[in-house]
Amino acid sequence: MILIENAKVLRNDKLISTNILIEENKISAIGDVKSKSDYVIDGRGLAVIPGLFNSHTHAAMTLFRGYADDMPLQEWLEKKIWPAEAKLNEEVVYWASKLACIEMLKSGTTFFLDMYFFPQATARAVEETGIRACLSSAFFDFFSKDLLEVNLKRVEKELKELKNFRVLRAIAPHAVYTVSLEGLQRAMEIAERENIFVHFHLAETEKEVLEFKKKHGKGIVKALDEIGFLSPRLISAHCVWLEGSEIELMAKRGVNAVHCPASNMKLSVGKALNYPEMKKAGLNVLLGTDGAASNNSLDILREMKFSALLQKFYYGADLFKAVDAFRIATENASKAFGIKAGKLEVGWLADLVLINLSKVSMNPCHDLVANLVYSASSECVDTVVVDGKIVVENGYFEGKEKILERFSKTAEKFFAGLV
Amino acid sequence: MILIENAKVLRNDKLISTNILIEENKISAIGDVKSKSDYVIDGRGLAVIPGLFNSHTHAAMTLFRGYADDMPLQEWLEKKIWPAEAKLNEEVVYWASKLACIEMLKSGTTFFLDMYFFPQATARAVEETGIRACLSSAFFDFFSKDLLEVNLKRVEKELKELKNFRVLRAIAPHAVYTVSLEGLQRAMEIAERENIFVHFHLAETEKEVLEFKKKHGKGIVKALDEIGFLSPRLISAHCVWLEGSEIELMAKRGVNAVHCPASNMKLSVGKALNYPEMKKAGLNVLLGTDGAASNNSLDILREMKFSALLQKFYYGADLFKAVDAFRIATENASKAFGIKAGKLEVGWLADLVLINLSKVSMNPCHDLVANLVYSASSECVDTVVVDGKIVVENGYFEGKEKILERFSKTAEKFFAGLV
Repeated sequence: MILIENAKVLRNDKLISTNILIEENKISAIGDVKSKSDYVIDGRGLAVIPGLFNSHTHAAMTLFRGYADDMPLQEWLEKKIWPAEAKLNEEVVYWASKLACIEMLKSGTTFFLDMYFFPQATARAVEETGIRACLSSAFFDFFSKDLLEVNLKRVEKELKELKNFRVLRAIAPHAVYTVSLEGLQRAMEIAERENIFVHFHLAETEKEVLEFKKKHGKGIVKALDEIGFLSPRLISAHCVWLEGSEIELMAKRGVNAVHCPASNMKLSVGKALNYPEMKKAGLNVLLGTDGAASNNSLDILREMKFSALLQKFYYGADLFKAVDAFRIATENASKAFGIKAGKLEVGWLADLVLINLSKVSMNPCHDLVANLVYSASSECVDTVVVDGKIVVENGYFEGKEKILERFSKTAEKFFAGLV
Repeated sequence: MILIENAKVLRNDKLISTNILIEENKISAIGDVKSKSDYVIDGRGLAVIPGLFNSHTHAAMTLFRGYADDMPLQEWLEKKIWPAEAKLNEEVVYWASKLACIEMLKSGTTFFLDMYFFPQATARAVEETGIRACLSSAFFDFFSKDLLEVNLKRVEKELKELKNFRVLRAIAPHAVYTVSLEGLQRAMEIAERENIFVHFHLAETEKEVLEFKKKHGKGIVKALDEIGFLSPRLISAHCVWLEGSEIELMAKRGVNAVHCPASNMKLSVGKALNYPEMKKAGLNVLLGTDGAASNNSLDILREMKFSALLQKFYYGADLFKAVDAFRIATENASKAFGIKAGKLEVGWLADLVLINLSKVSMNPCHDLVANLVYSASSECVDTVVVDGKIVVENGYFEGKEKILERFSKTAEKFFAGLV
């Protein structure tokens, strides 16, 4: 039981001072509540906000942060990332995921959707650090039937293993340029059978879109619809190169699109996710950092600013507001993943972040949400609660030093083995 | 005398471990130096980098952080900012500047170029917080001869007053849509007489450029050249809507252009500063946050990332690298302002920042500059030295709480007076 006393909370667009009681893993009361709690947090000078969602990342790619920047995409993949990834092992993914979990928690993220190799290693990192996650078993088939069968066998095994962890699960066919339509269809079938999510890269570059059209004589979204791939369980990252009619169809089918502004800018994809059209169509938009090899940060506070600024730059200054950035990092993700987090409500999960209002970047506080989106940094994150447990306190994640040390040793060994 | 022992430093693109000795306000030795110093900093786990330059801001606009976001530019200015600015006083500018100085120092900025009302109040804030700055006396004339004379009188008075402070000085005719060509010419004459800088907004929006051409029958840059306004002492912010030939002429005249990516994106100016052309032409490009009303952060670490990502998004993934972002925030500014800071060299000013390499966002450290530009946050700033004095230690600016308290009271009074 945790009682947060006299903290600032947004209610009906007003910042009020109130108490929040956490029992088990839920918010059990908000308001004039007093209780003989085990643990009382003095909330004066703090604002409580819902924990933030990072809805597209490759956590263990922290390993490759700064490893190969500023290169053309193809050269980057072929000369640096793919050869290195071919040598990945469970241990290095585990430590790199752990580093990522700490980075995310310390910047206010309480939930992430991941796609990477060895998801069971990431699952251990998730459980041990206390963050919440949806982990994917990912695959390519490179348009080979044999490879598809081999990979789906592994995927089924991984999905079974992931059941042993406190995580949501997804299957992740990588993208249309790496997975056949049959592969995508089989993935959706597995997702339906298991009642899990499908995590996917969609329309990230113009090349992807043009080549698909050339090969199949129709657009990606139409083709996906024909095989029953468009569904509310689909979380599709990027969604940059989509036509208005494709956006409408996706919205109709209840698909979720993840905006990854920093990655899209860094890799120069040439366009911004069309939020104005998506909003009009009612398509649910989420926010993601992508991996540390292409961002290079997993800080969703920074990502909110990138989302707002890229949208403003591309579509106009007043169409996408601070509150939109906050919504794609909270409520919209809550809706997509069907979990009661992302709002401060009685009965909802106690996934929340206490923001230190005495940091310079939070002052003055004319508008809490504007400050969070446009000027807050990870430095403002004081306390993070996930599933009713305190995981970051006074900006500190206990045991960080040891994890960093183990990560560094493992990473050193890994990169030495590459030469 | 300060000795930094066993810190990581970039030398010829390699990260080496070394010692740095600071005597008076200068770096007096780098290398295997041992000295009975007054003060020894254990540099293990720290990297030393030159202090960063914020080459365009309106420091005291911290007052308006989050005050009115997400509005169309004209409405924002006319309904919110200008009415409020009309009521500014020296006290509120002083406290808001002080807040800005702390925010900048804590995120690694050791020098800023400012443009705002009551520069003498900002000068006090600069001296008291220990940061380095070039402060402008700013004016509009709104194309009225009378107003020009009145304002130049005030400017002359302010410039004289600023001589009493440890600051560089500039005169700041606001922009071509608020100051007559005669006003600009007079400003440059004063700058030459006083041997100071000229701080100016140039080609921020398409509207500015089109309306000027309509009114004068020629482009802004050509007109400025005809009145002798293009000079190495000119620091022109934004420089978004420039033609190739204008960039060439500016480069030839030694003008400096300040990239303000976050502000340009947030205010949706529709284009990105043309760094590729500027580089080709040899135009010196600097980096600035602009004010907290249009950013809303004064964190130059974040701004380096915005500069790189906006350039990549607009012009291609491999044209503007992490090292370019770092250069526009250091060496290029050093060159523009003619001060020996922005490089770690013996005999140069001891304006430097110690970065905590144990922060998650700095790990792994494949590439220090890439980490600084793409993933570091203000949390990584451990110690800041300006002019040989330690002003931030362990991420802490001494006296911050009291300053924040006084700022908040003054701001509250100010905004209460607006209603």
